[in-house]
Amino acid sequence: MQLEKFIADVPDFPKKGILFKDITPLMQNGEALKYTMEKLSEYAKEKGATLVVGPEARGFLFGTPVAALMGVGFVPVRKPDKLPREAIEYEYDLEYGSSKLCIHKDAIEKGEKVVIIDDLLATGGTVEASIKLVEQLGGIVVGCAFLIELGFLKGRDRLKNYDIYSLIQY
Amino acid sequence: MQLEKFIADVPDFPKKGILFKDITPLMQNGEALKYTMEKLSEYAKEKGATLVVGPEARGFLFGTPVAALMGVGFVPVRKPDKLPREAIEYEYDLEYGSSKLCIHKDAIEKGEKVVIIDDLLATGGTVEASIKLVEQLGGIVVGCAFLIELGFLKGRDRLKNYDIYSLIQY
Repeated sequence: MQLEKFIADVPDFPKKGILFKDITPLMQNGEALKYTMEKLSEYAKEKGATLVVGPEARGFLFGTPVAALMGVGFVPVRKPDKLPREAIEYEYDLEYGSSKLCIHKDAIEKGEKVVIIDDLLATGGTVEASIKLVEQLGGIVVGCAFLIELGFLKGRDRLKNYDIYSLIQY
Repeated sequence: MQLEKFIADVPDFPKKGILFKDITPLMQNGEALKYTMEKLSEYAKEKGATLVVGPEARGFLFGTPVAALMGVGFVPVRKPDKLPREAIEYEYDLEYGSSKLCIHKDAIEKGEKVVIIDDLLATGGTVEASIKLVEQLGGIVVGCAFLIELGFLKGRDRLKNYDIYSLIQY
């Protein structure tokens, strides 16, 4: 399936000079949504993942369907003050500034095989933060999967010790 | 399946006096997650839904898996400035203050049968806002489904013209 045709280019969002890749037309299409989630699930299965981790908020859009299709659990990585129980945090640089991400301290068992899923791989800041959080809790990151990869931002270089999978490359 | 045992009570979150229902233990458990999404999907299918709508951010956790299992599309309802293309907005009161929600103007076709999915029905403010947005675009809300319903907050009274389904009632 040609997933590219379901991605809308939005110039100057969220700020001037950025060409935003809008995934909502893909989400809105039942066949494209299902195909995407099945492909990401196949990848996660091949990597032997027993848990899916996804960062807020668009990682939730992709992470939970993949977990549900695989029959494994899902753990959210969230912005500060969103997780109700004891959490650990990691500060990181992001395409449009800097940010902190958190994960519940009891979210991952030692040795758990984790796949990290998000909509987009840009500079890799968000996924690197998610990896650090998973590893701090003793999890093993067996792969990272994305709908879209912006190759020119070289996120792969930042994540060169990890297996990266993406359905659409720009 | 006894889903209640996967919900953690967190006192005084997000502020003093609120007993927060934490859904992350349920999400973390593969069987509980799958069972939950299948039950919500069955409901949406019975109601004849052809599209799932879910409000940011926890509605994403439940809405997209249901859409993926059903093979229909998903449309996000988001906070202001998060949607990249032309959107309409609705202002509403919420359990802990007031807020605005938005939906892309081209997200829903006239007559489209929509099920709204979220993690929790409390006072019903968020789901009412989502309903108003869907209806403004000409969609028909055939039902609203939740993992948890806090019956004592009387969200059902506010939504009395709509079909409401919840898997756990408190």
